[in-house]
Amino acid sequence: MTTAQPTTEIIVETNVETTAAMTLRTFSDALATRQSTPGGGGAAAVTGSQAAALISMVINFTLGNKKYTAIETEMQAWLTQSEALRNELLALADRDVEVFNAVSACYAMPKASDVEKAARTAALQHALKAAAEVPFTIAEKCLAVLHLATPVGQKGNANLVSDAGVAMYLANAALYSALINVNINLKFIKDAAYVATWSAKRDARLAEAATAYSAARSACATTLGVDL
Amino acid sequence: MTTAQPTTEIIVETNVETTAAMTLRTFSDALATRQSTPGGGGAAAVTGSQAAALISMVINFTLGNKKYTAIETEMQAWLTQSEALRNELLALADRDVEVFNAVSACYAMPKASDVEKAARTAALQHALKAAAEVPFTIAEKCLAVLHLATPVGQKGNANLVSDAGVAMYLANAALYSALINVNINLKFIKDAAYVATWSAKRDARLAEAATAYSAARSACATTLGVDL
Repeated sequence: MTTAQPTTEIIVETNVETTAAMTLRTFSDALATRQSTPGGGGAAAVTGSQAAALISMVINFTLGNKKYTAIETEMQAWLTQSEALRNELLALADRDVEVFNAVSACYAMPKASDVEKAARTAALQHALKAAAEVPFTIAEKCLAVLHLATPVGQKGNANLVSDAGVAMYLANAALYSALINVNINLKFIKDAAYVATWSAKRDARLAEAATAYSAARSACATTLGVDL
Repeated sequence: MTTAQPTTEIIVETNVETTAAMTLRTFSDALATRQSTPGGGGAAAVTGSQAAALISMVINFTLGNKKYTAIETEMQAWLTQSEALRNELLALADRDVEVFNAVSACYAMPKASDVEKAARTAALQHALKAAAEVPFTIAEKCLAVLHLATPVGQKGNANLVSDAGVAMYLANAALYSALINVNINLKFIKDAAYVATWSAKRDARLAEAATAYSAARSACATTLGVDL
């Protein structure tokens, strides 16, 4: 999903059900058609949620297996995290639609007088901050999934390690995808201090993600015994 | 989805509907639980399909827009491709389940006598080839999506370029994810000539993907005017 821009295009919002309730066919069709939501932000959230689900799958095949009794407690704690992230990311797909619609509504505000223009600008700037912060939260949740891929890829049921590897790739890509939407919204925010603060937060998360990705890739490759 | 291994775990196959007909909640729950399918292969196919859908979305916001009349014919041709890829990738999630189940069925074959053992091994080796070739096809389709991200990110509706960027990240990750499943199946295939042939094909696609990713990232960043 791109940030709404002043445009003469007719944007029809037709989302009446939550993302989680849509079939994969309906979601795919909704992504593909000429409607702004769901878009890239929603796809990022859904992909991050799938990554979390795969971490849960590896853990669910580890718990109760005699070979892995020693790490049962750790695995249970990671499962609690991955399940929370899976649900939060799926819900964030809906939040992404909401903040996009709020930005669109601001662009539709009247701008005939200076008073109207000022009100419109203030509302828009406020809405853009929310539209940056929701994908930032999506990116942070994806980073948390990426962090789980290392211990789960290293210590989890080795028969399922390819799923931990897929989780790693998908969480990493979803993180970068969400950050595109952060960046494009920051571009239109005029509050320089806000932009500086969130740009620094973004850069810190990117650095952390690079380290987490490298660790997870190494852990999964070692367990797999084949190149990724 | 990992390659089925000889195991004492009880694997329950409960897929009664196609992936496309599942809700995102149902698919997520099915990924997360202690059942082998859907797994990483299916998640890769679904993610690749989402990437294709986002390419279609950018094109659908470009077609009919006066600013982009000059590239209408090219865009229409790319839309035909992206829509085909979107549907093929969604269908490949089902094929991935089928080939996994075929491998599992081989592991369940009797192995009491030498004759039974030989029959089981032959069937398994045959099934493993299909289980390698389906994710290879998923990877190839994702590569085709990745190729579309460059012209669409460069020439498509600039307001939607962040969606082309997300398509790029997701297609790339889905490609790598599918190739994990290729690699893990190749590991168990004893036909050395087959393994050599498919390893070479994999390496060629990886090299092509690196070039396509680099081109798409550059095209999207230029259009966006912000770092990705």
